[in-house]
Amino acid sequence: MMDLSGFCPHYHQAVQLVGRRWSGSILRAIMAGRHRYAEIRSTIPGVSDTMLAQRLNEMEREGLVDRRVIPESPVRVEYHLTEKGQALLPAVRALAAWADAWLGPKENGD
Amino acid sequence: MMDLSGFCPHYHQAVQLVGRRWSGSILRAIMAGRHRYAEIRSTIPGVSDTMLAQRLNEMEREGLVDRRVIPESPVRVEYHLTEKGQALLPAVRALAAWADAWLGPKENGD
Repeated sequence: MMDLSGFCPHYHQAVQLVGRRWSGSILRAIMAGRHRYAEIRSTIPGVSDTMLAQRLNEMEREGLVDRRVIPESPVRVEYHLTEKGQALLPAVRALAAWADAWLGPKENGD
Repeated sequence: MMDLSGFCPHYHQAVQLVGRRWSGSILRAIMAGRHRYAEIRSTIPGVSDTMLAQRLNEMEREGLVDRRVIPESPVRVEYHLTEKGQALLPAVRALAAWADAWLGPKENGD
């Protein structure tokens, strides 16, 4: 168990990075095997093209996501997680497990 | 290992909840044993009174944080995590570990 000190600027930055609107869900979609732009978009209800493109750009700049252009006809673009992005899997899983236990249908009485 | 489907509205909600500006760091501060308002505030550089009060209110409404008024003179107010808030500890730890490995001083060459 790592010791949690009261504040850590890197943790703060990590929360902002993953917590930015849609970023958490985009990460999860790619982790779940959605790699093509259109696949990612259709997986996430409500995300606009502008927003998705912007988030993917940011995630590429931050080194989480690798954009691959596949020279087919027509050209195909895929997004894959880098090693740094893959390393977020335990955090995404932990948050998903929490959401399942505390925000899921059982908790809401559905 | 739980299976990650492409999208989950509860996970999306969880990311927004923890990822809201300052919320992740407030959670961490309380997990690290800072319970009094002034302690939490002094732990997190840059957070304003308005923002901290608003976030603590939201986290109380969402059932993550329990506000306790301790009838001393002067009255003391403490914030503690509820069971639902405590359950976020693995996610906070996983994100903190990632931040330490990938955003820490070694990675930045400091």
